[in-house]
Amino acid sequence: MKYIHSSKNPQVKQWKKLHTKKERENSGTFLVEGFHLVEEALKIEDMVLELIVSEEVEIPPRIDYGSVSMTQINKEVVKELAETETSQGIFAVCKQPKHKQVDATSYLLLDAVQDPGNLGTIIRTADAAGIDAIVVGNGSVDIYNSKVLRSAQGSHFHLPIIRGDLFEWIEKLKSDGIPIYGTSLDNGIVFTEVEPTPSYALIVGNEGNGIQTDLLNETTKNLYIPIFGKSESLNVAVATGILLYYFKKI
Amino acid sequence: MKYIHSSKNPQVKQWKKLHTKKERENSGTFLVEGFHLVEEALKIEDMVLELIVSEEVEIPPRIDYGSVSMTQINKEVVKELAETETSQGIFAVCKQPKHKQVDATSYLLLDAVQDPGNLGTIIRTADAAGIDAIVVGNGSVDIYNSKVLRSAQGSHFHLPIIRGDLFEWIEKLKSDGIPIYGTSLDNGIVFTEVEPTPSYALIVGNEGNGIQTDLLNETTKNLYIPIFGKSESLNVAVATGILLYYFKKI
Repeated sequence: MKYIHSSKNPQVKQWKKLHTKKERENSGTFLVEGFHLVEEALKIEDMVLELIVSEEVEIPPRIDYGSVSMTQINKEVVKELAETETSQGIFAVCKQPKHKQVDATSYLLLDAVQDPGNLGTIIRTADAAGIDAIVVGNGSVDIYNSKVLRSAQGSHFHLPIIRGDLFEWIEKLKSDGIPIYGTSLDNGIVFTEVEPTPSYALIVGNEGNGIQTDLLNETTKNLYIPIFGKSESLNVAVATGILLYYFKKI
Repeated sequence: MKYIHSSKNPQVKQWKKLHTKKERENSGTFLVEGFHLVEEALKIEDMVLELIVSEEVEIPPRIDYGSVSMTQINKEVVKELAETETSQGIFAVCKQPKHKQVDATSYLLLDAVQDPGNLGTIIRTADAAGIDAIVVGNGSVDIYNSKVLRSAQGSHFHLPIIRGDLFEWIEKLKSDGIPIYGTSLDNGIVFTEVEPTPSYALIVGNEGNGIQTDLLNETTKNLYIPIFGKSESLNVAVATGILLYYFKKI
């Protein structure tokens, strides 16, 4: 085990760089914080490259970290790395998975979801609803942003989340015969008019502007959720939950 | 019109106190920020006690503020009052409505919802789903917290939100013959086993612990939303949306 007890250590600076999207992309890695996320990451083979643990933390026996290399740090370094107010003092450097091919029948496509809390909650909701794969288009917040990771509560490690061009994905899904449903406040049909099928793709969009028009023009159908009261719209994560659970046809 | 151009003015200190729950309760008022919330507040008669507007802001003609008193402030005071990063420079002091009696058939009851973003999103969702009244029990974050107000996007002004004792409310609703559905991860039936009726009350609970057991024992039935993937639970606002829209039976 290595020991790093100074926040000036170059390794600490290197880890801290993983708070930025640029460094995450350059290195193909990301940093998770807290027992729950670290445990979820460790369940996936070859996901965790390195564990970073406070000297004040005792790792409970239930956590099997195998031969993953571990560095012990002190309070000062914890403070430097933490992105939560009361850090649990445990971190993991993880490898960004590459998903060249996915074997999926249900998809959630995201067009420019910008709030990290919303993106994380959407990922958690898609996981709960049994969606097979998520495709995140351009203009969305980085999926490995620490707030996205926290809000998703480990769902990053449960289903493939692919960054890709939504136009290309729609073309591919169409050629596979998968119906693609957009969501729109202005045009479209009430979502309950669609008969749910196990294989489908749903697109949800930006918090303020919804899905870009060019994408809406490429879908099989566009759906809306009726508003019965006086609010103007639903939060995008809430809307996603309503639609995905409707499609489960419980 | 009054002018206040120093953040040291005692009136500014008084307004700033409305950032605290204690002062909001003592005064029976609360502060909203931004064009959208101020406009929604002004639509309700006698809701706005006072407008506070930056000298850099021009109030568009669509906003009818009638005879509401207005104070002009400068950048320095805006900075002092603002709770958003980029303030729109418009604020309103509002009166906390008193709802002794409500004329409602559908209710949402909240047991110790603690995250302001969640509480606001739940209020917005209940509004969208056409819920008639919300009852907020003890242990929840203050409904007039600025983050709750922002997340609810004006729904505070669309339906009665009552602070009350949930045990008393359940007793009252039961004696009115209204079915009360709790939500629980462990016990209960799949929500789709309940036949939706226009008159009902749904209870949702704390982010970590759910609804307290003593309340679950008082309900007509307790419902759960099945989890199909590997996430442990749904976000409480997302779960609320799924259930309220199921009960709309669209």
